[in-house]
Amino acid sequence: MEEISFELPPKSNFSEWYHQIIQKAEIMDIRYPVKGLYVWYPFGFKLRQLVYSKIKNLLDETGHQEVYFPALIPETEFKKEKEHIKGFENEVFWITRGGSDELDVKLVLRPTSETAIYPIFKLWIRSHANLPLKIYQIVNTFRYETKHTRPLIRLREITSFKEAHTAHRSFEEAEEQVKNAIEIYKRFYDSLAIPYFVIKRPEWDKFPGAAYTIAFDTIMPDGRSLQIGTVHHLADNFSKTFEIMYEDVDGQRKFVHQTCYGISERCIAALISIHGDNLGLILPFDVAPVQIVIIPILYKGEEQKVLEFSRQIYDKLKQKFRTVLDDSEERPGAKYYKWELKGAALRIEIGPREVKEGKVIVSFRDTREKFAVNANELTYEKIEKWAEDMRNRLHDKAKENMKKFIKYFNNLNGLADWLKKGVALVHLCESESCGSEVENRSGGSLLGWLVDIPSWLNCSAEGSCIVCGSKSKLAVLARTY
Amino acid sequence: MEEISFELPPKSNFSEWYHQIIQKAEIMDIRYPVKGLYVWYPFGFKLRQLVYSKIKNLLDETGHQEVYFPALIPETEFKKEKEHIKGFENEVFWITRGGSDELDVKLVLRPTSETAIYPIFKLWIRSHANLPLKIYQIVNTFRYETKHTRPLIRLREITSFKEAHTAHRSFEEAEEQVKNAIEIYKRFYDSLAIPYFVIKRPEWDKFPGAAYTIAFDTIMPDGRSLQIGTVHHLADNFSKTFEIMYEDVDGQRKFVHQTCYGISERCIAALISIHGDNLGLILPFDVAPVQIVIIPILYKGEEQKVLEFSRQIYDKLKQKFRTVLDDSEERPGAKYYKWELKGAALRIEIGPREVKEGKVIVSFRDTREKFAVNANELTYEKIEKWAEDMRNRLHDKAKENMKKFIKYFNNLNGLADWLKKGVALVHLCESESCGSEVENRSGGSLLGWLVDIPSWLNCSAEGSCIVCGSKSKLAVLARTY
Repeated sequence: MEEISFELPPKSNFSEWYHQIIQKAEIMDIRYPVKGLYVWYPFGFKLRQLVYSKIKNLLDETGHQEVYFPALIPETEFKKEKEHIKGFENEVFWITRGGSDELDVKLVLRPTSETAIYPIFKLWIRSHANLPLKIYQIVNTFRYETKHTRPLIRLREITSFKEAHTAHRSFEEAEEQVKNAIEIYKRFYDSLAIPYFVIKRPEWDKFPGAAYTIAFDTIMPDGRSLQIGTVHHLADNFSKTFEIMYEDVDGQRKFVHQTCYGISERCIAALISIHGDNLGLILPFDVAPVQIVIIPILYKGEEQKVLEFSRQIYDKLKQKFRTVLDDSEERPGAKYYKWELKGAALRIEIGPREVKEGKVIVSFRDTREKFAVNANELTYEKIEKWAEDMRNRLHDKAKENMKKFIKYFNNLNGLADWLKKGVALVHLCESESCGSEVENRSGGSLLGWLVDIPSWLNCSAEGSCIVCGSKSKLAVLARTY
Repeated sequence: MEEISFELPPKSNFSEWYHQIIQKAEIMDIRYPVKGLYVWYPFGFKLRQLVYSKIKNLLDETGHQEVYFPALIPETEFKKEKEHIKGFENEVFWITRGGSDELDVKLVLRPTSETAIYPIFKLWIRSHANLPLKIYQIVNTFRYETKHTRPLIRLREITSFKEAHTAHRSFEEAEEQVKNAIEIYKRFYDSLAIPYFVIKRPEWDKFPGAAYTIAFDTIMPDGRSLQIGTVHHLADNFSKTFEIMYEDVDGQRKFVHQTCYGISERCIAALISIHGDNLGLILPFDVAPVQIVIIPILYKGEEQKVLEFSRQIYDKLKQKFRTVLDDSEERPGAKYYKWELKGAALRIEIGPREVKEGKVIVSFRDTREKFAVNANELTYEKIEKWAEDMRNRLHDKAKENMKKFIKYFNNLNGLADWLKKGVALVHLCESESCGSEVENRSGGSLLGWLVDIPSWLNCSAEGSCIVCGSKSKLAVLARTY
């Protein structure tokens, strides 16, 4: 809205690049006067809407229903599940006053909604016919972060927490849902061309109240890992606390088994960080707020013809794609910078020569190579094909980049040094003592054990624990966000 | 989700009818364990989404951009505008603690977002080229209500506050925007078939910090008025406080003039209350979560043919409309009750006779008359025509009902009695003393003066003040929600 410079620091200086692209590409305004709170610009909010409509569609298609539960949780409910409250009590905001009254029952601003939702699940679930119950909501949640905050990554108000909650007849049926949720998240991140690890978190570092936790992690351009989604099997831990029971086909009253899984706006942090370059955003075509920008190249005396031809192309493309005709007074170079910064996926330039030849000059945001296309060959199908090719290129490149940050170690030599640059794979047994030892000696955090080995990773699933030598699975160590 | 009874109290017992329809039609679960907080069921949330997509479209079409500002406002910003804070300080929730720390700067949970947004407007607005600036957000806001709370009407968490904020070069341009906003809200409520008054609020009872306030009010089935939207001209009151200035074409730095306007989920309270009947929801076709329900009437031995024919119809209609084929095991009567409660706009019954004759039996939710239609005449165009006819019928009926609650008084005789039943129009001058006097003597609240006289109201714009006799405009008195 105000005038901004389009220049970014090089992406190799990732922390500063990230800080500046968030502001300059108008994703978020980082000048809100409270630590850890940021403002979504119109452009950023549009990107958010496009990305979240993907996850919404995936959830709707798979029988999840959207709901909304209150943001305020009474202390009494919040404190019911002992493990859960232990995990969150240092991180929540407390509402203690209304007007000038002290509240009788203090309220917590939801850090996540288990304790808001499950007292109502108790009322909604009566019999096996009500199961499975699968709901989700996209809401603001709040954490009293004392660490360094960062837009989209570490926030005091997570503005866009997509949390799903499900209830099932048995541990096994809930486990099936855990797998379904993993599948949904894979499809979501694949569609964004974001590569990931699927990791089972250590027993001693799982979601407070869960039986076990599966996390999605990706690697950021500085070699640190970013957790971008979690799936929790809650077993009957919460249902016992909140008395969520159903009458089974055999007439017996049983506790439900539950799962919950969440994704926050970290998905957008990953999207921006993984694909962007020194010039700005690079976005897969179908989530780019501006998919196509048309830039007429105007020479004195020939403006009219060029503008007319550009408008024809524009009128056709805007039917189907988010298209901008940038006929502002700026020079073409300034327009290029601006739309590169904003990640317009496809650029179309039209000058007098193109008009004469019935052609347009096309370039993709990622490769930036220009080529000429006959205007009448600029079909919707061709553009969709280009879009899919671009997504594949971005995905391949992102996987290549991620691979460069991953190194396998079968002993501790050099591990600590490597962890200053990237992520390490080690074979590690599941004992907490070996986990602590490798953390202490490497300086990295143990993310957990790979649930599946990505096809593009050349590593064997089993080996000897790097600490005790026992037969072990493949674990991931990293500096984390 | 759990089993519920479909029976409602008669709508003539409005308070109890409202209470029960909200729960039984699965709009909101009212059993959340904190006063004034409720849970949106999947069905209710779908209705919300359909209604809000209408207002979103209207705002998008008219150049408003969607954004998101933080829910937490620092005490320092919140207290800057003196009138504003006076109006809200007894109604806000205070966050005083994070984890076990007392916060240095206390935070307010936004009751509305002027004081969150305007410090950023100061940064976004530099020159006349940035104006007009028109943004909106749909967010949860919070009020510490000490009065009796009620779902969708009086809440401690307003889950769905659509608030727009605009900035302009002059008082006059902002006033133009006030008119545009009124136009947008009229179109919104017309599309929902909800009649309204457009009223200028009394000077002494306007939005805290505004130059003046225009309100939309409708009349609920118990004769009380419900404010369902407000539009505020803020002049330069906030821009002076928050130093929002622009450089004009003449090079001078000037304060912007602002407007803001909001609609909450009260729009859904009105929708439910105004159109519903003893059997449940009646919804205009295009916001009904279920637009068409198909109910096969199954007789032994002929199930197959009827189901097959029903599925053919279903497969065709679901391409275009939100259609349910209710082939559950319940008896047809139970299905009728259920879908009447849920406001399915169009019901299609199909029995063996219809299959034989290639017909279906159609009925509309509002008139409930049944008639036969040839299946091949059940075109999308015909259904859209029916939908539009239904909306017009609902609108006409709602206006008729509203008229019954309105009575003009040219003296105080009987006014107090009438105000126990309905809404009164009186000519009233704009002095606070006459306003107070008529309120005291009638027991009603002065909503303000009609901005325009609806065509369906037979009243003259000007007359003598009911208290002092001076030349006056038409004012509205009511018991309010």
